Amino acid sequence: MGGKAVNIKVPLDVPPEERLDMITQGTGRLCLFAGDQKVEHLNDDFYGPGIAEEDADPEHLFRIASRARIGAFASQAGLIMRYGMDYPDVPYIIKLNSKTHLVKRDQRDPLSTLWITVEEVYRLKEQSGLKIAGVGYTIYPGSEFEHIMFHKAAQTVYQAHQRGLVVIIWAYPRGKSVEDEYDPHLIAGACGVAACLGADFVKVNYPRKAEVNIPEAFKEAVLAAGRTGVICAGGHTKDPRDFLEELYQQIHISGARRNATGRNIHPETPGGSCKVYQCSLCGNGGKQNSPGSI
Amino acid sequence: MGGKAVNIKVPLDVPPEERLDMITQGTGRLCLFAGDQKVEHLNDDFYGPGIAEEDADPEHLFRIASRARIGAFASQAGLIMRYGMDYPDVPYIIKLNSKTHLVKRDQRDPLSTLWITVEEVYRLKEQSGLKIAGVGYTIYPGSEFEHIMFHKAAQTVYQAHQRGLVVIIWAYPRGKSVEDEYDPHLIAGACGVAACLGADFVKVNYPRKAEVNIPEAFKEAVLAAGRTGVICAGGHTKDPRDFLEELYQQIHISGARRNATGRNIHPETPGGSCKVYQCSLCGNGGKQNSPGSI
Amino acid sequence: MGGKAVNIKVPLDVPPEERLDMITQGTGRLCLFAGDQKVEHLNDDFYGPGIAEEDADPEHLFRIASRARIGAFASQAGLIMRYGMDYPDVPYIIKLNSKTHLVKRDQRDPLSTLWITVEEVYRLKEQSGLKIAGVGYTIYPGSEFEHIMFHKAAQTVYQAHQRGLVVIIWAYPRGKSVEDEYDPHLIAGACGVAACLGADFVKVNYPRKAEVNIPEAFKEAVLAAGRTGVICAGGHTKDPRDFLEELYQQIHISGARRNATGRNIHPETPGGSCKVYQCSLCGNGGKQNSPGSI
Amino acid sequence: MGGKAVNIKVPLDVPPEERLDMITQGTGRLCLFAGDQKVEHLNDDFYGPGIAEEDADPEHLFRIASRARIGAFASQAGLIMRYGMDYPDVPYIIKLNSKTHLVKRDQRDPLSTLWITVEEVYRLKEQSGLKIAGVGYTIYPGSEFEHIMFHKAAQTVYQAHQRGLVVIIWAYPRGKSVEDEYDPHLIAGACGVAACLGADFVKVNYPRKAEVNIPEAFKEAVLAAGRTGVICAGGHTKDPRDFLEELYQQIHISGARRNATGRNIHPETPGGSCKVYQCSLCGNGGKQNSPGSI
Amino acid sequence: MGGKAVNIKVPLDVPPEERLDMITQGTGRLCLFAGDQKVEHLNDDFYGPGIAEEDADPEHLFRIASRARIGAFASQAGLIMRYGMDYPDVPYIIKLNSKTHLVKRDQRDPLSTLWITVEEVYRLKEQSGLKIAGVGYTIYPGSEFEHIMFHKAAQTVYQAHQRGLVVIIWAYPRGKSVEDEYDPHLIAGACGVAACLGADFVKVNYPRKAEVNIPEAFKEAVLAAGRTGVICAGGHTKDPRDFLEELYQQIHISGARRNATGRNIHPETPGGSCKVYQCSLCGNGGKQNSPGSI
Repeated sequence: MGGKAVNIKVPLDVPPEERLDMITQGTGRLCLFAGDQKVEHLNDDFYGPGIAEEDADPEHLFRIASRARIGAFASQAGLIMRYGMDYPDVPYIIKLNSKTHLVKRDQRDPLSTLWITVEEVYRLKEQSGLKIAGVGYTIYPGSEFEHIMFHKAAQTVYQAHQRGLVVIIWAYPRGKSVEDEYDPHLIAGACGVAACLGADFVKVNYPRKAEVNIPEAFKEAVLAAGRTGVICAGGHTKDPRDFLEELYQQIHISGARRNATGRNIHPETPGGSCKVYQCSLCGNGGKQNSPGSI
Repeated sequence: MGGKAVNIKVPLDVPPEERLDMITQGTGRLCLFAGDQKVEHLNDDFYGPGIAEEDADPEHLFRIASRARIGAFASQAGLIMRYGMDYPDVPYIIKLNSKTHLVKRDQRDPLSTLWITVEEVYRLKEQSGLKIAGVGYTIYPGSEFEHIMFHKAAQTVYQAHQRGLVVIIWAYPRGKSVEDEYDPHLIAGACGVAACLGADFVKVNYPRKAEVNIPEAFKEAVLAAGRTGVICAGGHTKDPRDFLEELYQQIHISGARRNATGRNIHPETPGGSCKVYQCSLCGNGGKQNSPGSI
Repeated sequence: MGGKAVNIKVPLDVPPEERLDMITQGTGRLCLFAGDQKVEHLNDDFYGPGIAEEDADPEHLFRIASRARIGAFASQAGLIMRYGMDYPDVPYIIKLNSKTHLVKRDQRDPLSTLWITVEEVYRLKEQSGLKIAGVGYTIYPGSEFEHIMFHKAAQTVYQAHQRGLVVIIWAYPRGKSVEDEYDPHLIAGACGVAACLGADFVKVNYPRKAEVNIPEAFKEAVLAAGRTGVICAGGHTKDPRDFLEELYQQIHISGARRNATGRNIHPETPGGSCKVYQCSLCGNGGKQNSPGSI
Repeated sequence: MGGKAVNIKVPLDVPPEERLDMITQGTGRLCLFAGDQKVEHLNDDFYGPGIAEEDADPEHLFRIASRARIGAFASQAGLIMRYGMDYPDVPYIIKLNSKTHLVKRDQRDPLSTLWITVEEVYRLKEQSGLKIAGVGYTIYPGSEFEHIMFHKAAQTVYQAHQRGLVVIIWAYPRGKSVEDEYDPHLIAGACGVAACLGADFVKVNYPRKAEVNIPEAFKEAVLAAGRTGVICAGGHTKDPRDFLEELYQQIHISGARRNATGRNIHPETPGGSCKVYQCSLCGNGGKQNSPGSI
Repeated sequence: MGGKAVNIKVPLDVPPEERLDMITQGTGRLCLFAGDQKVEHLNDDFYGPGIAEEDADPEHLFRIASRARIGAFASQAGLIMRYGMDYPDVPYIIKLNSKTHLVKRDQRDPLSTLWITVEEVYRLKEQSGLKIAGVGYTIYPGSEFEHIMFHKAAQTVYQAHQRGLVVIIWAYPRGKSVEDEYDPHLIAGACGVAACLGADFVKVNYPRKAEVNIPEAFKEAVLAAGRTGVICAGGHTKDPRDFLEELYQQIHISGARRNATGRNIHPETPGGSCKVYQCSLCGNGGKQNSPGSI
């Protein structure tokens, strides 16, 4: 169920701790619940026609995270510090940088910088007693400011590994220089950049290209990432069946190490249940706090 | 009177101190007297036709702050260090950044950066013995420089909470990318950003939109902020009755945690009395140093 | 003579030392001899038709400073370190930033940044044994780079006050956003900014406006500055009688705390004598090292 | 075979350690296997028509490095930390900066900044026990941002020499100001810059110019570099015979201290064998871990 | 011979050490051999028609420096660390910043920033045992980036004087705002800036202006510099007789404290002899390691 376990080598700069196991249950596979959209998309995913009313409250994300079979929940430190006391069993990934979607691509190339450092995250972890397993950082290869983000990402990996924290790189080629950010070869390139940065996981968009077998083409990205695990962003909300089929293909054909889903879990789920209920496809990569459906 | 008390959870990064109670009298509600306009608007609010003569003197702000039922008075450190010895009972919020209104939006996107750090504020607090309860920081989501301000705001929250100081984020979507900064959905987005930054309170503009029930629409912002309290900027000076009615709606219909008023208190008040006299609407959230009218 | 003494409150961030008294002789009034023009105007004020020959030598500034009834002499640290051993009795203000006038306003908005920090000035003071009473910093409100200068100015005040040093802010609204930098209301705004920064004195241009009573209009600036003393820049060299009359009006009608003069003292003074000889208008605010004329 | 040994003087800022000898086997000559292209060229060199399938996996670079007669293998720290435990005998050069090729020269001048510092590399070296012999840094003379890269390069040399690490500067004149980056005289200039920066080796493009004897013209670069060793970038993949002839000329006519090859080794090599098999031209400068063919 | 000795006052921030004497032999006059052109002009001065063949090798600069009657040889730290062990008797000035001439004035205003700090130079001095007497830094008054260079120059002076090192400022007005960088009045302004920065010497271009007596006009610069010694850049290579006559006028008419020569010494000198052979004009300011001709 969910593909065989992946034999993950601990990088040489990481002390022998158990945080990778904490979020992958020893499988090397990760089912990431991404919850950083309150900045990235402002309130677009949380309020409006077709969105469940309870989704308007930030706490809804924590309710899902605590009940779903996820490996880790990623969000900004400020939010986690304010709700974590009520959801102490969730494994957290602190998303270190975030930007809004207000400045469009034709106005200025994207730049997203650190909100807090790994050392500060480590202090919050010690202070709060929360299960903070790692950190996340978004890079935009192809942006005129990629040098700033590459620098911060490399520093983040260096510091996080020194502290035994897992690092997930969100890698989205974007900027005036990028013609098609869904091109499979370009996405493979982004995976290679994340591997060179030393990321444990890289979260990319699932490619799209006319007249191409995408699950096959996506293998290039998984290969390029090498020992860095590839997980796919969920993208725009879609029909549950389509979502699950795509996820199956990513994992079982292309070789992705699970998925990173945000908008496909929470917005349209009345009663707090997830459309990816049971999440049986993800298998061992999911953590089950509550035995019932989510 | 003024809505029931709000059960506020202390974030996990804050040591158990009493500064939030100091400015909300244990209600979780805040009546903020904003006095940072000598930079933000230069001398426009303080001198000219229809403005009381005593308003020309910066000390006038302190006189009001010491006599009014406010929760806290926010201004720049330089001013507070020079007048605080004569107004030692006022709870202060140090506004950490300020800019003038000279560079207009079509010339360059707004950028306002730190004047002093939280650590320096903490030292001033210890040195002066003043009741410095917290710090304030302005962000402009949608500015091409939002990444600089988000970074500084997140750092401010991290450092302030380590020192037990309350943080108020002024959040105004602004810049070439922003079509309508009074749009209720956009203001809700700004509230969400402040929540992700970890702010204790977020000060936003009260929305405006044709053919929309604003008190109802403003609920979105209060919901999006979650455990971060929303307070409204006073905006342009207006008729006292209209001002009070709007304030009533913000608090009792939308669920705002009080208000942040500056220009509606001081400019047109001959004899030092505030048009929001008695401030009875604010209820427990107001601090009463002098029993008489202000 | 020179108006009554001003009761100055020591800001809360300043240890009880005597440097303010050193330059105001206990009057709270300051007659500043500004000598930073070798950078600000390059050699324009020091060499050419109608300029005394001895003015070409930087030492001339020190000769005047040592003989004139001034409160303090402001110049760059490099110059003071090289001549101070021969003029040890002069109270000095270290001007921390300076720029040339080569880049004009229509090319790029003005930006002037720190040459040395307050901590370095403090070390020079201890090392040299000179009477270094304080520091000066220029801000350009309205420049696209005002955020950089406001930050540095606020830091300068914070650090200088911790070290017991007086701070003088040169405040000149300037940049593409500024239509008329001599507008009285705008100059009052600049005074308010300096007050919020915590400056002890603010040096501004004396306003000009057609059909306006300038000495009356200038009161707005003095009021806006509150407990921060206003001193006027001398501006272009002019007829001694006009200069003295303007100075009299600034002090006795508008309420300025003396003046800051540079180009009106040195350029046209053969024999080393100052056209503001005796400086009797300044009264107690002037320091008299040599009883003779200057 | 491979030219006589070069008498290398250890710079005065380097402690007497053996890392230069480690990668040159005491010859002062270096056969560098450059493997930083997963960022510089994204996945272009690793996947596509005519590229061996196993090249898609980052580990392929390590397999070649461990079997080929190379002096050192240069790649990013993140990759080396993740594969180094399986290839502990390879001498490594940590490439400190990298950029993608997405932003083209007519869009913005190139800027590539540090990912990690020399001090961090040193800690990784101590922590991992790997044979990390030195660091590499790319500069683009002629870029509008050359000042940033020159600063970082000089700092890198200073810090690396303090730690006994070898420094290789990749020097490519590039930017709107550069008409022909293959001009022999300009490449000689770049070699001089690297010498002034204190580099141990400088990696440049082999020049091209119509109607010029390139091996003769390239002598200028070798002379300009002085005691800094010149090695040539491999450039686009080409026919093995042409490649080897060019390499012979660089070393035996122009005086280059070996070569730096990446794309000519790995992309088209089915079965893991290098087209520069045996690498006999390089002579002593090559390290032979496995006696068989590569 | 060479003008009378100059009575130099040690600035107040300099400990009583002998480095100024080391390079001026107690005369206060300096004959500087400038050798930073391998970056500033790339390989243009070192290779090509009419340039001696041995000039192609960086060591040639050291050979001249060791044999000529110079006060000090200025070059980049990287070069000096690599050749200094063979030329231990040369007094060195470490040039702290350098840029190439590739980006032209109409493309972008000049900006040259620190390669290494004074503290690092001091450590190199202690480590190498070389006679490092001081540091050099280039500023471009009138550049849009002058604020960056003024800041670094002032910091350099502060730190160097704390360490007893001499500081030479190269001061060239340049940028879109500068119409004529050879104007005598503007060069005098640049000298004044260097004086305010606290430089011990300022190296400027010798002015040019039609129908003006240049040696007379240049007096303005020497006066404006005050106690800071003025030395002239050599400029383009020229006829030895013209060169020496100009040098004579700079020193004996205008009052310059010797000269700074680079391109006029080395490029056209077959056999390693300098066209300024014997350098008798410089008199005491020249250091004579080898009695023979250079």
